[in-house]
Amino acid sequence: MEETFVPFRGIKNDLRGRLFCYRQDWSGGFHAGNRILAPTTYIFFASAIPVISFGEQLERNTDGILTAVQTLASTFLCGTIHSIIGGQPLLILGVAEPTVLMYTFMYSFAKDRADLDSKLFLAWAGWVCVWASLLLFLLAILGACSIINRFTRIAGELFGLLIALLFMQQAIRGLIDEFRIPNRENPKAIEYSLAWRFSNGMFAIVLSFGLLLTALGSRKARSWRYGTGWLRGFIADYGVPLMVLIWTGVSYMPSGSVPKVIPRRLSSPNPWSSGAYENWTVIKEMGNVPIVYIVGAFIPATMIAVLYYFDHSVASQLAQQKEFNLRKPSSFHYDLLLLGFLTLLCGLIGIPPSNGVIPQSPMHTKSLATLKHQLLRSRLVATAQNSMRQNASLGQLYGNMQEAYKQMQTPLIYQEQSIHGLRELKESTIQLASSMGNIDAPVDESVFDIEKEIDDLLPVEVKEQRLSNLLQSVMVGGCVAAMPFLRKIPTSVLWGYFAFMAIESLPGNQFWERILLLFTAPSRRFKVLEEHHASFVETVPFKTIATFTIFQTAYLLVCFGLTWLPIAGVLFPLMIMLLVPVRQYVLPKLFKGAHLTDLDAADYEEYPAVPFEIATEIDAGVRRTYAESAEILNELVTRSRGEIKHMSSPKVTSTSGTPAADLRSRHSPQIMEKGYSPRMNDLRQGKSPIVSGRGKFSPGMGEARPSKLGDGVRGSTMK
Amino acid sequence: MEETFVPFRGIKNDLRGRLFCYRQDWSGGFHAGNRILAPTTYIFFASAIPVISFGEQLERNTDGILTAVQTLASTFLCGTIHSIIGGQPLLILGVAEPTVLMYTFMYSFAKDRADLDSKLFLAWAGWVCVWASLLLFLLAILGACSIINRFTRIAGELFGLLIALLFMQQAIRGLIDEFRIPNRENPKAIEYSLAWRFSNGMFAIVLSFGLLLTALGSRKARSWRYGTGWLRGFIADYGVPLMVLIWTGVSYMPSGSVPKVIPRRLSSPNPWSSGAYENWTVIKEMGNVPIVYIVGAFIPATMIAVLYYFDHSVASQLAQQKEFNLRKPSSFHYDLLLLGFLTLLCGLIGIPPSNGVIPQSPMHTKSLATLKHQLLRSRLVATAQNSMRQNASLGQLYGNMQEAYKQMQTPLIYQEQSIHGLRELKESTIQLASSMGNIDAPVDESVFDIEKEIDDLLPVEVKEQRLSNLLQSVMVGGCVAAMPFLRKIPTSVLWGYFAFMAIESLPGNQFWERILLLFTAPSRRFKVLEEHHASFVETVPFKTIATFTIFQTAYLLVCFGLTWLPIAGVLFPLMIMLLVPVRQYVLPKLFKGAHLTDLDAADYEEYPAVPFEIATEIDAGVRRTYAESAEILNELVTRSRGEIKHMSSPKVTSTSGTPAADLRSRHSPQIMEKGYSPRMNDLRQGKSPIVSGRGKFSPGMGEARPSKLGDGVRGSTMK
Repeated sequence: MEETFVPFRGIKNDLRGRLFCYRQDWSGGFHAGNRILAPTTYIFFASAIPVISFGEQLERNTDGILTAVQTLASTFLCGTIHSIIGGQPLLILGVAEPTVLMYTFMYSFAKDRADLDSKLFLAWAGWVCVWASLLLFLLAILGACSIINRFTRIAGELFGLLIALLFMQQAIRGLIDEFRIPNRENPKAIEYSLAWRFSNGMFAIVLSFGLLLTALGSRKARSWRYGTGWLRGFIADYGVPLMVLIWTGVSYMPSGSVPKVIPRRLSSPNPWSSGAYENWTVIKEMGNVPIVYIVGAFIPATMIAVLYYFDHSVASQLAQQKEFNLRKPSSFHYDLLLLGFLTLLCGLIGIPPSNGVIPQSPMHTKSLATLKHQLLRSRLVATAQNSMRQNASLGQLYGNMQEAYKQMQTPLIYQEQSIHGLRELKESTIQLASSMGNIDAPVDESVFDIEKEIDDLLPVEVKEQRLSNLLQSVMVGGCVAAMPFLRKIPTSVLWGYFAFMAIESLPGNQFWERILLLFTAPSRRFKVLEEHHASFVETVPFKTIATFTIFQTAYLLVCFGLTWLPIAGVLFPLMIMLLVPVRQYVLPKLFKGAHLTDLDAADYEEYPAVPFEIATEIDAGVRRTYAESAEILNELVTRSRGEIKHMSSPKVTSTSGTPAADLRSRHSPQIMEKGYSPRMNDLRQGKSPIVSGRGKFSPGMGEARPSKLGDGVRGSTMK
Repeated sequence: MEETFVPFRGIKNDLRGRLFCYRQDWSGGFHAGNRILAPTTYIFFASAIPVISFGEQLERNTDGILTAVQTLASTFLCGTIHSIIGGQPLLILGVAEPTVLMYTFMYSFAKDRADLDSKLFLAWAGWVCVWASLLLFLLAILGACSIINRFTRIAGELFGLLIALLFMQQAIRGLIDEFRIPNRENPKAIEYSLAWRFSNGMFAIVLSFGLLLTALGSRKARSWRYGTGWLRGFIADYGVPLMVLIWTGVSYMPSGSVPKVIPRRLSSPNPWSSGAYENWTVIKEMGNVPIVYIVGAFIPATMIAVLYYFDHSVASQLAQQKEFNLRKPSSFHYDLLLLGFLTLLCGLIGIPPSNGVIPQSPMHTKSLATLKHQLLRSRLVATAQNSMRQNASLGQLYGNMQEAYKQMQTPLIYQEQSIHGLRELKESTIQLASSMGNIDAPVDESVFDIEKEIDDLLPVEVKEQRLSNLLQSVMVGGCVAAMPFLRKIPTSVLWGYFAFMAIESLPGNQFWERILLLFTAPSRRFKVLEEHHASFVETVPFKTIATFTIFQTAYLLVCFGLTWLPIAGVLFPLMIMLLVPVRQYVLPKLFKGAHLTDLDAADYEEYPAVPFEIATEIDAGVRRTYAESAEILNELVTRSRGEIKHMSSPKVTSTSGTPAADLRSRHSPQIMEKGYSPRMNDLRQGKSPIVSGRGKFSPGMGEARPSKLGDGVRGSTMK
């Protein structure tokens, strides 16, 4: 995306791009059928559960002025609007931890002011939102998002890890509180006797760890060795909600003589209970806020604006990473503009505003990638089986499958792409057949093992549509009504879920992987090379990696520490934004350019802007050979994040001389044989992990693959 | 071992063999130094903890007549005597679950007889032991153990799984009881109020699962990626006792206001408390037992004799599996004779007798294999580093290492063996050096990466000595005195440990692996082939495997069910013995010979007796190339149990034509090139898993290995 600050241009481009595929956004969603429910429920839980317990947090911190009802309402409202008229439908909106922190800071400031006080808090917060929205409008109109590519990995990943830290902190705090007497409860009550508190705490540990471990396990179900494929798929898709159900069920196992409140459960007011409604009419009171505070509201407003500008853009960025091969354009400017309106709206009805959330947004894309994979897969398998039943020859079989594949493509994508997508199938199978000397004979399993063949060549693609986002928002709204049922969930299960989300967000975060690398025994580092790994492991000296990582960690801890400060904590968004100039102007002085490139690829340093479509199209071509089966695909979209870089400057091509390059060439000789276009760098950067990934197969099993890999390379470079 | 029933011959052979290496048994142990403590403590816990809780079990079942003091005393007494004058010092003796069951049956019979009653129970049990010992003498003298090779995998593994089942059952029962009011306790006491019982139960779940999961994790520490090698080694060696300590510590975390008995802890009487001594003088009362019961005692006696004959032999067999490359001879007959004496002794002083235990005995050998590996390794590494410091050439370096290696060998082993043991090192390194054109230049890390090179070629060997066995027995004896400390261990930690032992005993049990295979989705079976797997997976049709396994499982459940019956349960040992004739006469009618051979290798079906020594020597030669590093070694001794078969009949050589053989040839072409001696079957059977194991390395990393593998093959077949 080129950096232009001509007013409105960014917004115009975004609108043009998204309107072009707006219709398909809906039709695509509906064509997916029931399957759309898998990602929907997955994301629904991922966004509803935190929002609910953030509500509980706010309820404590604001003396009950704001509750889960308001946070849910905000998430529902903003989510629905964004999913319908928003730009990037992969982006998930919700009330985020930073917002909760900001509101807590604001409340603790307000309630001590005699002429402001908790009565006028919401009104004042309304003013804050007004200012914030104005600032967001400005940023959007002036094209502030076009510097998005300056938000490099270092900033995004640090922010991601900060969120993970906050989630984990919440999980631990919550678990400890299970042993304490909750505020606003009668400490004399029998169920708060030492014995029952102890029981409750221990039960909480069992429930939360139970959820955490089983949920983590269920996500890996696809690679399980046991059970039918259908069951494994179901568990992998719905495992997390399933586990929440199961452990909620377990929490009801204790016999009737155990007090009802063991274990403790969610305690949010019913939306129809009195007092849950005061906030809606806050706009009437905004006039009563003293002028000085109306002006003063500008300070927190700037913080919120900065926070949202960054958070919203980074969330959107992470949801559109290059290796997802998205076909549809991004929409940073327009989404920021819309966010401004949403913030205004929320402020005026006295609910905390929502913004794009991490890790839910990338989780959303990931789950949609799996969905798309399944759709393609089942369709192709069906076609292949059909053709076999009709004793089709390999040629016909291939033709049919290609036809089916074409039909599955979004209109946006060039046909030659989709043809190319199945080329490997043709080559591999034809080879096989001719080797067995029955090229025109009817195909049978011996020649063509449908399941494996197809898995081997399906590309990473994402089911880009608006339906899943809309549905999950509506379901979140439904939670307000479903409060009585939600209150059956034990709080301890929530804490387990928080830990789960924190951990789920780690893989693929290179910052995290570098931290692990620091603790890896030198004698064991070769193991990292054996696996799917980022290129910096090969190209950057360990000392440099260590320095860079320690600096980043220190920075992270400072940001985390800031959130603990009473009022000054309001400044922590600045710290994160500050990282952008630091990256651009300070780090290049401390680290070698090439190293920095590998540790923290910054597009603006590397290549002249390339129009979005083309980039993805070609990437798509290059990476078609990647996806191997839902598991490996899963590994891919998580572990290889950002592995495929865009470098065409001679400086980088010269890296082919580095030991790393030699290493790579040893990994996959086919690649080096070929003359290569500038884009080949994608490949050499991107491939090596995959190739070493292949290495996991026993020589016997692996034999066929390298050649196929080679074809993939040829296919992509011959354009 | 040839089948001879000439009285005393077996015993004579055993004595001759063991006396030959008796001196070395001790010297070897002392030369190991402190390192001997790792396997010692590991086994000490593995044998003490169950014995203690079996004691608790007996205390409940015999109304306190027998307690942990007696079971510990028996284990200490028998263990010490056996470790000093016993035949096979790898065999661990202890009071086993079956013994507890038998004594429970006997007590429930005795206490209902007016003229026997619980007062005369021990005296009567004394008579049972007298008869049992006589029977054991007969069996030993008549050479019953020479049919030991008829105890095939099917019987041994079924028994192993039965024991695992009993352990797991104990773990679950114990955990459930944590929620109940213990017998012989005052149910009115505050700490047994519902609230505290609930707390206790929940705490118990946390502690037991905590121990189980962490203990299982710690065993894998060697393959961890984090922490220094020393730390990883320490955790892997002492992880289990460490975890018992840690979780016992955790159990003390609750604040003082929590009742002392939360969580519940071991409750055994101090040996010096009154009543713990009544049994020692039981011999005086044996005269008072009515004659009819003295005669009737013969029935349970036969059961016990059968049980011990089988249990003792199988435990000894599992502790001496072929892939351990033991250098020293077995001693089945003599050990059975000794067991007779021990049974008599225990009976006369009124304590339950001990016998060879599963899974402790194989665990013992396994831990000693790791020990030996570490000793060899550190010695060779030291030597190599030394030579490097003196700028030795490769030739010298190799010479020194070979010298060091020789010195480490037990005098029993032929020199050419030990020379051969390092041949691969020479070849691989010389190759490497010459390829780099500096054959006489001083060696440096670049040419010769000590750590990896040495790991690559160290053989599986076991530190065969008597010290670890003696020490652990003495430590068990120490437990009697240390009772006050042992009582600090929460019972829930015990239950976790029981589950741990049950699970630890599973890997390597092909019966178990076949059960898993049944549940493996057909589409995933190829995964089994990719890994280290038993040969039957390749050679036997799935249907056959399934039938065989289901039959075995049904048989197992019958045995397990028997143990639940009140009195008739006394017969369960017969069921297991019955399996031996069933295997020999019934199964061959139901299954193809070749299949049966792969599913359940029975030596007597396959090859004319070969003197023990030679077999092991040559195996040793063949398998020198295996061991790769403590982890892989570990995997080896567990996963590849029984993989190396002894087949020299033409029938089996012909299997080279089976699809399996082709598959194997794809796995490791080098092997097929060579013309092969009959023994090559060992190789083809044994190798393929290893080769596919190699496959785990990425092509880049893997390149060097196949050639080295080839050398290994040549080395072993050129004899």
